[in-house]
Amino acid sequence: MKALRFEKGELRLADDIDVPHRTGEALVRVKLAGICNTDLEIVRGYAGFCGTLGHEFVGIVHDSPDKSQIGVRVVGEINAGCGICSLCKSGDSRHCARRTVLGIVNRDGAFAEYLSLPPGNLLEVPAEIPDLAAVFAEPLAAACEILEQAAITPCQRVIVVGDGKLGQLIARVLATTGCRLTLLGKHPEKLQLAAMEGIETALVQSGVAGGADIVVEASGSPAGMKLALDLVRPRGTIVLKSTFRETPEIDISRVVVNEISLIGSRCGRFEKALELLSGGVVDLEVLVTQGFPLTMGIEAFRRASSPGTLKVLLVP
Amino acid sequence: MKALRFEKGELRLADDIDVPHRTGEALVRVKLAGICNTDLEIVRGYAGFCGTLGHEFVGIVHDSPDKSQIGVRVVGEINAGCGICSLCKSGDSRHCARRTVLGIVNRDGAFAEYLSLPPGNLLEVPAEIPDLAAVFAEPLAAACEILEQAAITPCQRVIVVGDGKLGQLIARVLATTGCRLTLLGKHPEKLQLAAMEGIETALVQSGVAGGADIVVEASGSPAGMKLALDLVRPRGTIVLKSTFRETPEIDISRVVVNEISLIGSRCGRFEKALELLSGGVVDLEVLVTQGFPLTMGIEAFRRASSPGTLKVLLVP
Repeated sequence: MKALRFEKGELRLADDIDVPHRTGEALVRVKLAGICNTDLEIVRGYAGFCGTLGHEFVGIVHDSPDKSQIGVRVVGEINAGCGICSLCKSGDSRHCARRTVLGIVNRDGAFAEYLSLPPGNLLEVPAEIPDLAAVFAEPLAAACEILEQAAITPCQRVIVVGDGKLGQLIARVLATTGCRLTLLGKHPEKLQLAAMEGIETALVQSGVAGGADIVVEASGSPAGMKLALDLVRPRGTIVLKSTFRETPEIDISRVVVNEISLIGSRCGRFEKALELLSGGVVDLEVLVTQGFPLTMGIEAFRRASSPGTLKVLLVP
Repeated sequence: MKALRFEKGELRLADDIDVPHRTGEALVRVKLAGICNTDLEIVRGYAGFCGTLGHEFVGIVHDSPDKSQIGVRVVGEINAGCGICSLCKSGDSRHCARRTVLGIVNRDGAFAEYLSLPPGNLLEVPAEIPDLAAVFAEPLAAACEILEQAAITPCQRVIVVGDGKLGQLIARVLATTGCRLTLLGKHPEKLQLAAMEGIETALVQSGVAGGADIVVEASGSPAGMKLALDLVRPRGTIVLKSTFRETPEIDISRVVVNEISLIGSRCGRFEKALELLSGGVVDLEVLVTQGFPLTMGIEAFRRASSPGTLKVLLVP
């Protein structure tokens, strides 16, 4: 089958890859997959991954030990735990030390005609959610994770730093809490997309008042991290949503003196994301910049890396 | 009066300093003062402070607008807020943006014959607490602050990194929760002091199992920070208790992927500290390495900076 792979430091399109076959797992035919910043970072050397990239997808179950799944349209949790450690047994394989992660850690990903995941990782997509929205389930779940980590109330002032793909999703999710929200970014045209959803936005260049209860760092840049520290109030919380290629220098003395909490936040539960998509609470199709056939994957990556781009999709 | 001052980058003993006189404040005759790592850091250039050093003390109120305080033995909260901002009005001047801080920010400190603080900052020391214990009220309150920021239960595994003054106090405070506690340090003779109190200790050099629910970083060294990240479990908490002179490099991607919480922690409420001292729950006099008259303050600082030293006291 065809697959877009990262091997020996190079992105290449292969057409001779075996259809994945992992014992006890389901085989999913990929309908649509999304390019995430993590994919771009992997291609720049982050995480040391080697194999088929991609972890955002919607597909149809082609085969599964759970026969009831066959033919069902699904999205999938990307972490596959060992199944026997205490974390896996408590139902959270997202942090299993021996987990594989779709397209990120020791498991071929979604930029291919087929992918393999444990049946328990797959969730049926309700009929009312189109593929173009369902493909956002994974990053939307990651945005929803913030709601599980920080209690956000309508009286709190919340600033999201970064108007890229992830910042856009986070702003839409946090807006559902009714909090006093501002999305902060550098790109008027990106901010406009959020403003159209009724979200208050501000240009970094124009400055914004600090003293926020919660700041979500979703820019992935050292400057964004520094800005988050400038904007949070004493005893406030910074949610760290981006992985960083360059380690940002954090003024720890300021974190200590102002008693700031920094909370790392990664993958979330898909149920909440599907619920938001199903209810039409968030409209994400507007975030799609362009779709490419998988065979044009290398060009798609180039497009995804270029300024002004939001979500780029691949169609196997 | 005599005072130990840090001026123009130099520590010097002055004997011609005016007794402080701040309108509306109390004047306290210092009986005993303690040298803290923050004092050592200030002398190395941290915080850009200029004036009389010292923020750990016990003294007698010489004069006060609140006449009932005169003659009373007191310790004192070190932050003096503006009194009119929302933080001050909510009763937490510790984070007032315009606060002064005794011996740290725009306010002469305790390494002098007299100091000045607002009457509301002073707390009477119960008679059963000797001066040698009362002088620890400020750092002990800082250790107690952790209990307000992280819910610590008996089933949790907690590691304190750093067997210095602060780590020792923190370990004693956290031991009162009944949690599964280990104090980790490099100095057998310091660890022994905690072991005598029934606290489990371990040498960094010998290694210690990770997977802790909570790690308290109290070493103030970049290596201690890295160790804390190695020892905490996924979704666990690192409490940052030290200010750092060198900004440590923190692997933020690890914080994000493992969803770690980093919580900055500084000054605490004195009530809890006095309660612990009054009940004899913690025995701190064993942590005193040496006392010096204030006139030997420069030598005292040299002693406080030398390896193997715990608390050094000054007697004006």
